[in-house]
Amino acid sequence: MQNQNLKLSSTSFHDPLLMDISTLFEKELAHVNSVIDERLKSKITLIDTIAKHLIFAGGKRLRPCLTLASAGLFGPPTPSVHALAAAVEFIHTATLLHDDVIDESDTRRNLPTAHHIWGNTSSILVGDFLFARAFELMVETKHMDVLKILSHTAATIAEGEVHQLVEIHNLTIPEDTCLSIMGSKTAQLFGAACQTGALVVGAPKEAARALFDYGYNLGLVFQITDDILDYIAKDEKRGKKVGDDFREGKITLPVVYTYQKASDSQRKFLEETFQADDRTPEQLVLVTQLIDNHGGFDTCFAKALGFQKIALHSLESLKEICCTSPSSKLIYDVLMNTAEKCISRTR
Amino acid sequence: MQNQNLKLSSTSFHDPLLMDISTLFEKELAHVNSVIDERLKSKITLIDTIAKHLIFAGGKRLRPCLTLASAGLFGPPTPSVHALAAAVEFIHTATLLHDDVIDESDTRRNLPTAHHIWGNTSSILVGDFLFARAFELMVETKHMDVLKILSHTAATIAEGEVHQLVEIHNLTIPEDTCLSIMGSKTAQLFGAACQTGALVVGAPKEAARALFDYGYNLGLVFQITDDILDYIAKDEKRGKKVGDDFREGKITLPVVYTYQKASDSQRKFLEETFQADDRTPEQLVLVTQLIDNHGGFDTCFAKALGFQKIALHSLESLKEICCTSPSSKLIYDVLMNTAEKCISRTR
Repeated sequence: MQNQNLKLSSTSFHDPLLMDISTLFEKELAHVNSVIDERLKSKITLIDTIAKHLIFAGGKRLRPCLTLASAGLFGPPTPSVHALAAAVEFIHTATLLHDDVIDESDTRRNLPTAHHIWGNTSSILVGDFLFARAFELMVETKHMDVLKILSHTAATIAEGEVHQLVEIHNLTIPEDTCLSIMGSKTAQLFGAACQTGALVVGAPKEAARALFDYGYNLGLVFQITDDILDYIAKDEKRGKKVGDDFREGKITLPVVYTYQKASDSQRKFLEETFQADDRTPEQLVLVTQLIDNHGGFDTCFAKALGFQKIALHSLESLKEICCTSPSSKLIYDVLMNTAEKCISRTR
Repeated sequence: MQNQNLKLSSTSFHDPLLMDISTLFEKELAHVNSVIDERLKSKITLIDTIAKHLIFAGGKRLRPCLTLASAGLFGPPTPSVHALAAAVEFIHTATLLHDDVIDESDTRRNLPTAHHIWGNTSSILVGDFLFARAFELMVETKHMDVLKILSHTAATIAEGEVHQLVEIHNLTIPEDTCLSIMGSKTAQLFGAACQTGALVVGAPKEAARALFDYGYNLGLVFQITDDILDYIAKDEKRGKKVGDDFREGKITLPVVYTYQKASDSQRKFLEETFQADDRTPEQLVLVTQLIDNHGGFDTCFAKALGFQKIALHSLESLKEICCTSPSSKLIYDVLMNTAEKCISRTR
């Protein structure tokens, strides 16, 4: 492997002394989890069962943590912050449920997916239920800007999903289009989770906007490293099978870069591989080697580092406004660290 | 056929001189349609294509008409009323898209369904997009009660869908459960369309609540007659194939009543028919006869008439408050007439 950028990032940025974001917000997350638990309740027990299967399956609650952290930079947590954090997790989980139907994934977070156990129909409907519950929670915050941002985010996610579907087998997809899909599908919710967290406790709009930029770019870093991990991670690190994207024929950034540099015969191999109905483990090994040989992983790392830099820069612009107490300084440091750690997941 | 109630309702209530609700609001609907058209726009053309396929396929816009009418009882139409009416239609269309995936229906409004042309995946995602756009539109009304009611409605619809799924092959489903599913899946949105229409132009809360009751009961009448029409209508009247529910093995109210009264051998026939993977046109004829013989259609009509009465009564309670001008009096009369016409669709 030629992952020099990886080595660089993981040695220079990762500070093991700094707390993990979900450790810092352990107590707050317990509040959020009880909101989630309470709002999943339905007279229809199948809804509880399916939603809890996914929502309490050990996800890291990264998005609600970003909401808690962004709020925490500006004030103490309120019931609105917890409602909002739960809403963000609901939107994320609803997206996962519909995603798994679309991708026909069999496992998620090391468990069989809901659609694999209960069928597509249940997954679609419980996803809809979670979307609706998310809006109910958001409305409780009574904050118009929060509602505006998150309803726009939900539309953007759906647009991103359809966009991905349209481009699903396109190996010549431009890098910009690839990043735009990533932006809509993943980064937008990261950004909105941060921005609305700040707004709901009364942060100035410009500060909340800077937190959106932090979250959005963090989301891009997260997704790019996720795309890399699909080829090089060990299963237990992700809670997903390695090669999930590959098996589904998803054209991710490492593949796009590789196709651009590939010879005619390599392009033909990639076309045949990704346009076929199925892909074999042997083909996965060959594609991984091809990506590595063309520096596809390195190019992705470089791109991720670029977005990480923007994320850190956006956060730095807030240093004076929000580091006004020891607790907000701690949160600030943990958010910096989160952006740094995000890339080092790939080690 | 023993449809004495049908004859009664259609001769005593239907007044051809009274205007149709969609004729009365033709001009307002043109505004709503341009909001819909504008908000369907997306950089992803597949979204426009799929959403427009269904949303401009000649639906009667009954739900947005109810919003326009309920608003019109209390004041002149505002941009918020148009946004809200469009939001209501988006929620309805999103539900249809997900419904068609679940039911595997091939036609809707005499056209091939979206999932039949573009596949399940697109239908799920475009449904999600429409839900999100609906919330964006609702947020623009800046009316907290409206947001609360419609987000609760969206959750209730999803709950109703899951509930129906759970009971899908249950011939011994209690009447109350059947009506509760109908209430969640259909009546709730009818009610909310009315209630929020009134609220958004500043109607008193109690008046808006009475309009919810009107709409909810109208929705029940609408769904019960729809379930009857699935057995006895001609195709062109519904824009759906006769026997759609039957082919999908849906246990609707006429079947539930019939099963309750059926002999052991008839029960066995119904069980075998509805629990099988497929149902034949010959079985449809036999089941229709069986329902008719046991007075299943009449029982449904009687039930529908009961809900119609409640709807009319709820509206009557508003007569003095809202019939303060010739135009609001006209709207009031048309709403009365709509509740009356709803049953006479079955003629």
